[in-house]
Amino acid sequence: MGSKERVVILGGGFAGLNLVKHLDNDKFDIILVDKNNYHGFPPLFYQVASSGLDPTSISFPFRRELRKHRPENAHFHIGEVKGIDTTRQEVTTEYETLPYDHLVIAAGTTNNFFGNPDLIERVFTLKSTDEAIRARNEILDRCERAALEHDPDIRRKMLSFVVVGGGPAGVEIAGALGELKRYILKRDYPEIPQEDMTIRLYEGSDRLLRAMSEKASATALKDLGNLMVDVNLNHVIKNYDNNIVTLDDGQEIYTEMVIWTAGVTGSPIPMSGTDVKPGPGGRFITDSHCKVKGLDNIYAIGDINLCITDKYPRGYPQLAQVAIQQGRYLAKCLNSGTCVKDFSYVDKGSMATIGRNRAVADLHKVHLTGFFAWLAWMFIHLISLLGMRNKINVLLNWIWAYFTYNTALRLLLKGSKYPKRGSMWDKG
Amino acid sequence: MGSKERVVILGGGFAGLNLVKHLDNDKFDIILVDKNNYHGFPPLFYQVASSGLDPTSISFPFRRELRKHRPENAHFHIGEVKGIDTTRQEVTTEYETLPYDHLVIAAGTTNNFFGNPDLIERVFTLKSTDEAIRARNEILDRCERAALEHDPDIRRKMLSFVVVGGGPAGVEIAGALGELKRYILKRDYPEIPQEDMTIRLYEGSDRLLRAMSEKASATALKDLGNLMVDVNLNHVIKNYDNNIVTLDDGQEIYTEMVIWTAGVTGSPIPMSGTDVKPGPGGRFITDSHCKVKGLDNIYAIGDINLCITDKYPRGYPQLAQVAIQQGRYLAKCLNSGTCVKDFSYVDKGSMATIGRNRAVADLHKVHLTGFFAWLAWMFIHLISLLGMRNKINVLLNWIWAYFTYNTALRLLLKGSKYPKRGSMWDKG
Repeated sequence: MGSKERVVILGGGFAGLNLVKHLDNDKFDIILVDKNNYHGFPPLFYQVASSGLDPTSISFPFRRELRKHRPENAHFHIGEVKGIDTTRQEVTTEYETLPYDHLVIAAGTTNNFFGNPDLIERVFTLKSTDEAIRARNEILDRCERAALEHDPDIRRKMLSFVVVGGGPAGVEIAGALGELKRYILKRDYPEIPQEDMTIRLYEGSDRLLRAMSEKASATALKDLGNLMVDVNLNHVIKNYDNNIVTLDDGQEIYTEMVIWTAGVTGSPIPMSGTDVKPGPGGRFITDSHCKVKGLDNIYAIGDINLCITDKYPRGYPQLAQVAIQQGRYLAKCLNSGTCVKDFSYVDKGSMATIGRNRAVADLHKVHLTGFFAWLAWMFIHLISLLGMRNKINVLLNWIWAYFTYNTALRLLLKGSKYPKRGSMWDKG
Repeated sequence: MGSKERVVILGGGFAGLNLVKHLDNDKFDIILVDKNNYHGFPPLFYQVASSGLDPTSISFPFRRELRKHRPENAHFHIGEVKGIDTTRQEVTTEYETLPYDHLVIAAGTTNNFFGNPDLIERVFTLKSTDEAIRARNEILDRCERAALEHDPDIRRKMLSFVVVGGGPAGVEIAGALGELKRYILKRDYPEIPQEDMTIRLYEGSDRLLRAMSEKASATALKDLGNLMVDVNLNHVIKNYDNNIVTLDDGQEIYTEMVIWTAGVTGSPIPMSGTDVKPGPGGRFITDSHCKVKGLDNIYAIGDINLCITDKYPRGYPQLAQVAIQQGRYLAKCLNSGTCVKDFSYVDKGSMATIGRNRAVADLHKVHLTGFFAWLAWMFIHLISLLGMRNKINVLLNWIWAYFTYNTALRLLLKGSKYPKRGSMWDKG
């Protein structure tokens, strides 16, 4: 182990995990660091939040993946990264300090509240499995309590949902809430009149799914309308306080649950021993070999990579596909000791679902909408899920949901608050 | 609705749910009150704690069950019961006050710390799905952190587990931890030497599974030994503080995770308008018709029922079978307006698993052990699980586990701590 060069990988998302999978474990001593002990699946977090899928079906333990490497060559270390010392070539987590020969930053992005940091304590987000579970519990809890409430005005306040952001995440969670209002409410919560639930979506630009085709945007708008989602374009949220959302035009809307999908920024990582700082969007500026400019032996891949090319002057889109391809690309480079050619992104298109059985998909020249787009969406996501068990689980759930709306998963499950953890090694 | 007599049922466990299922919903306005929105499955909580099963596979939403009744006749109300006013015939929960004509207390039991109430903040328990999730996360977190620890002494402290109580719950969770030590550790945590993990079980009496046959006790003792569990009989825990367990003989044992299965007591429910108090074990003393002695229109069924008979001078055993049978019995009584005969418990035997594929079962004269007892145990639990989806899920998981040890579920999933909940109707 000592003789081999050590590659430390920060983050086990699509980028980090695909790097681990393809790194030569005879050549390197590999350490994957992540604050969770599993690989999550961001494209489906919204289905966790809407009780459509169970968190365990879209999570895969890193240790199962690493077992495929010989244990002495690949290790998983749990921990949140606290800092990188580029002079001493060390990474520090809440638990330990790790020396590295090569460091790969694949830490992804976190929510961006655009200079409104205290929003983190007031809005719900969908950037991690844990955040999605929290949102799920809040939605279910509100339905349960609204079902007990006799005052219609209070009931409407309890069920006033606002989704901020019209990208895939915003459109998908808004669609799922629309399904709840349109189809599930009268079955599971007969006490709640449908009109008491309101779902408003606010998007700053003039269309939904800006990254996709005009056709996709138009279809998404129509489909969300059919699911009783009130879509408001060209509106930016200025603030949210005391259950009041304030828009840029001064308009004030009462809402008790805001789901924030409006923006991301690279996960902040303090660095010492260098004056290299993350660039726009908190992303590390790299050369065409994913190497961070101005640093040796440090690479950035996935959402946190910012590589400016003629075709992508603002960097590659922050999509799973880019992360997967960069992970594989960097593995090749490190395995062969040098990057023979520049990284180039092969765009396989993008898609988003609206509700239970509709979607929009841009696949190169082909624009799919409705049911067929949804089938394509299902297929693509199933093959990208890690583990046969998860694939089967998710497929069964979707088939089930197609007929039953998956109300089997509308469970308000939370860890109990006791005991307060007592060990001297606790994170507190 | 107003015209019909209202039956309010406190608790949707085996007793409450079976009552709901069999109550005549043309005759009664039925309200089921529970603090969770789902029916949990206590016999399998230990498998949630040991990552063998996913909480969603053993939970069933009450609203799905109630849909079978006509909605206007059966309702689910979420809420924790705060008190019963027998004069005004009202139940108060954290959210509302409910008038009743007939009240059925099926609130079950909670952990009993035998005059050591502050233990609740120091030990882990398995009396609810949420408690089991908490225990699961703690066990996984300890394994992950021990895998990073270089000091063997600290590692051993992190992995020093104590199970208190040698009943089914204690034996089953100890067995599951034994599986972890014996089979899973070297596969998933190659960094942790097996001997660094210790599992100690303390039982006050002179044998495990006291309620079962001598043969079952002896087999359980042997099987736990094979799973490297250090079983200590005739030992009572006096205290647990600063990671030190103190036994009745003054012995002190260092442990950082205590799983408490040593005793239960009826869930406390403040009552006004009467001086009737719960009897021994916090259970309500009832006549042979499950009617609480000294109270009109108030019944107690399941673990919280205490009905003294010649055959059961200390009340019926607190088992799922009794609860199920009492729920059905009381439904008959209420439907027909009178109890034609006394409740009598048909003992179908009892069983417990030890580890992945062994069990002990006392079925009348038949005493099964090992693999066949395990098959019987699986069968019985599968048929008692609510919902085809859950039955299939659990069966697939068990088949999977039999070959793979289910490491797919070793996921450290917890709800995120943000946002702090802001609505004026929040429980705070």
